[in-house]
Amino acid sequence: MTRGPLGVEDAERAAAMFKALGDPVRLRLFSNIASAEGGEACVCDIQDVGVSQPTVSHHLKKLREAGLLESERRGTWVYYRVAADVLATMALLLAPGRA
Amino acid sequence: MTRGPLGVEDAERAAAMFKALGDPVRLRLFSNIASAEGGEACVCDIQDVGVSQPTVSHHLKKLREAGLLESERRGTWVYYRVAADVLATMALLLAPGRA
Repeated sequence: MTRGPLGVEDAERAAAMFKALGDPVRLRLFSNIASAEGGEACVCDIQDVGVSQPTVSHHLKKLREAGLLESERRGTWVYYRVAADVLATMALLLAPGRA
Repeated sequence: MTRGPLGVEDAERAAAMFKALGDPVRLRLFSNIASAEGGEACVCDIQDVGVSQPTVSHHLKKLREAGLLESERRGTWVYYRVAADVLATMALLLAPGRA
């Protein structure tokens, strides 16, 4: 990732990240995880977004596929955290000159 | 806008902003403007994204409607800048606990 206006390839990858956040339920799930104590949330703690559990799973999968989340199974539950450097990368994408 | 996980209404508004950035051409236009000298770009300076001028205009309109850009006509040209506080707001939305 270089500074300055976005090139074509970086833009393709980054647009997929923003597109994944372009749904209110997905954005709330992401926000819940990003603001969780310790930067990590159990899927059991973040289901309160007004949709069914399979829908939550579907949205979490989309966020993971876009490179926004990482997940890890520990015992019964899967734990999610924001992928390393994703917030800094998005800030850089939005305002290359200011980051 | 309050801290902590996103509420339903904030999420609706914010998801529209992210959705608008979920297209590679729109993201490059936004990035060009965000990284422009003085934080402002003439539409004449940001057309080099491989699409026709009417398509550029269409994308700029979508970015403006999502609340991401502000525009001002001065003489022949329209000038664009990132809407006030939009980057800080997006950072807060992404990571309420860290902003």
